[in-house]
Amino acid sequence: MTYSYEELYRFTHDILTQIGCSEVHAQIATEVLLSADLRGVDSHGVARLSGYVRLWEKGRINTSPNIRVVHETPSTAVVDGDSGLGLVVAPFAMSVAIEKATNAGTGWVSVKNSNHYGIAGYHAMMALEHDMIGISLTNASPLVSPTFSKERLLGTNPISVAIPANNEPPFVADMATTTAANGKLEILQRKGMDTPSGWVQDKDGNPTTSANGVKDGGALLPLGGDREHGSHKGYALGAIVDIFSAVLSGANYGPWVPPFVAFLDPLPNLVGEGIGHFFGAMRVDAFRPADEFKSHMDNWIQRFRSATPTPGNEKVLIPGDPERELEAIRRNEGIPLLEPVVKDLTELGQRFGVKF
Amino acid sequence: MTYSYEELYRFTHDILTQIGCSEVHAQIATEVLLSADLRGVDSHGVARLSGYVRLWEKGRINTSPNIRVVHETPSTAVVDGDSGLGLVVAPFAMSVAIEKATNAGTGWVSVKNSNHYGIAGYHAMMALEHDMIGISLTNASPLVSPTFSKERLLGTNPISVAIPANNEPPFVADMATTTAANGKLEILQRKGMDTPSGWVQDKDGNPTTSANGVKDGGALLPLGGDREHGSHKGYALGAIVDIFSAVLSGANYGPWVPPFVAFLDPLPNLVGEGIGHFFGAMRVDAFRPADEFKSHMDNWIQRFRSATPTPGNEKVLIPGDPERELEAIRRNEGIPLLEPVVKDLTELGQRFGVKF
Repeated sequence: MTYSYEELYRFTHDILTQIGCSEVHAQIATEVLLSADLRGVDSHGVARLSGYVRLWEKGRINTSPNIRVVHETPSTAVVDGDSGLGLVVAPFAMSVAIEKATNAGTGWVSVKNSNHYGIAGYHAMMALEHDMIGISLTNASPLVSPTFSKERLLGTNPISVAIPANNEPPFVADMATTTAANGKLEILQRKGMDTPSGWVQDKDGNPTTSANGVKDGGALLPLGGDREHGSHKGYALGAIVDIFSAVLSGANYGPWVPPFVAFLDPLPNLVGEGIGHFFGAMRVDAFRPADEFKSHMDNWIQRFRSATPTPGNEKVLIPGDPERELEAIRRNEGIPLLEPVVKDLTELGQRFGVKF
Repeated sequence: MTYSYEELYRFTHDILTQIGCSEVHAQIATEVLLSADLRGVDSHGVARLSGYVRLWEKGRINTSPNIRVVHETPSTAVVDGDSGLGLVVAPFAMSVAIEKATNAGTGWVSVKNSNHYGIAGYHAMMALEHDMIGISLTNASPLVSPTFSKERLLGTNPISVAIPANNEPPFVADMATTTAANGKLEILQRKGMDTPSGWVQDKDGNPTTSANGVKDGGALLPLGGDREHGSHKGYALGAIVDIFSAVLSGANYGPWVPPFVAFLDPLPNLVGEGIGHFFGAMRVDAFRPADEFKSHMDNWIQRFRSATPTPGNEKVLIPGDPERELEAIRRNEGIPLLEPVVKDLTELGQRFGVKF
């Protein structure tokens, strides 16, 4: 089934106001959530709406939070999200980073006491219209085993960096620090297919190609897959995201990050508050004139995009190309939702008196 | 053959003063260069000394540079390295970042007109004694093909992040954004062995396991190895390093980065000056009290290090553990050099009247 952006917007917005979000918060959260559906990160979009609602029902999400800066210097701040939706807390924190950058050249904000914030890329891209480079990191529920670890200690901990260009569209990287995101496993599960090597280990810590590996108690593997293919680098990147997001802010880190799913309780003896994010904004003209920078970015992008491709491939892509192309299509032709998602949202609507 | 740190220090220092470095510059450059040998990154240490000398002979390295800040805001600066040794330019730029962080909470410095700066980790670690997080990036000669590209457009573009702890040693990640560093290929070449999959492609852009693949006109592959294993993420990381290091500062980027080897000339129509670096320093107490942060880092490190290992592995490592352990051994027992390196340094010494 395919739905227009406007239909999904209205539905999501109305559900969010039903659970107590203010009008402004419902608008922001809806825009952030649906940016995932538009850009093809279907696992992070409207399919998660009922997950957020369940966390609210459990009292783990506060829909009328007092989000505030609790510490700051000219170029830094710590934001306390007051258990709010990450979809609302993150844009607030990113706007603090942008304001800091306006004054000090750069702004860096670490966030505690938040929840899942949708796709990392949305927040990084907020910087673009200000001629700034945007950076967005978050930790997440532990599903990933570091190199040599049987235990899950890290989330898929994404890194997003958005860089403005002039005539070319911006460079937008947005990637989990694992070989493959969990959403890709779910697709293979549904199809009854195996995964490539290096994606998953089983519950005993051995490599597996079972798409059920994580569900059965195993773990996702850091980018690289195994030591020989550089998984210690993926592990280090995920660890840096965790530390910047949570040890700097006072959020939970590593295995203590509270699970997104409401049926799992957070661990006892938490080491911090909620989950953590980290945002950066760098004014391009804090380094060189913005026009100069952006025309060199055009040149960078054009040179890479016009590189001779390898056999069997059409062209070299710039990070952000596939998502931008999909967004153009989906804004026109609508957003496809899988049947289980439609069913879930229909039931959710019935419970809250909102027609899907 | 094994040499004491002091022997190699004296030799390197004397060669550098022979080619025109000031006493202070010779000391800094020697310390940076030999930190690679101590930490086991043998490809980036004294083995490269004659390479730097050849670049100086070609007029591509200026040993009495006027290294200076050419643009700044409260939290940023651009440094012009005046074609100096990266081994000298980089510590200067990192000290600017640290000074900015002291005043503004964080400091971010992009560098143009520099040369190879040794190991990324040395510069990032300069932040640690100030209770700051240090970040160090650099671009490098194009040896790496982006996902789907037959052409080499990126260097091995490393990322280093150093994070202080309290009783535990610091977290120090220092990694090329490729599956494997070029030095590892050279080792396999000498042994006549193949590489694992995902390290190299041949000159036609096809995957290969030949350790000579790069030498024969192929390329190193971004972390991940191929699209299915996430090489688009390694490519994006290498690209971000390139853009922060060179498009922000006005250095050469992508395929225009001048080669380290003196027998290859830079491309005509360069897009900037020299090679580029990027440094960051973040005062931990710009986010939360330093003691609090560092004791949580101890907890983070202890939790990860004590994780249950996978079958056949002894323990989970913290980034920086192997290098630190090796440094302790090599400071005591000396630094082993391969015979071709000994021969090369002996000849170098003879030319400059410095006994090796």
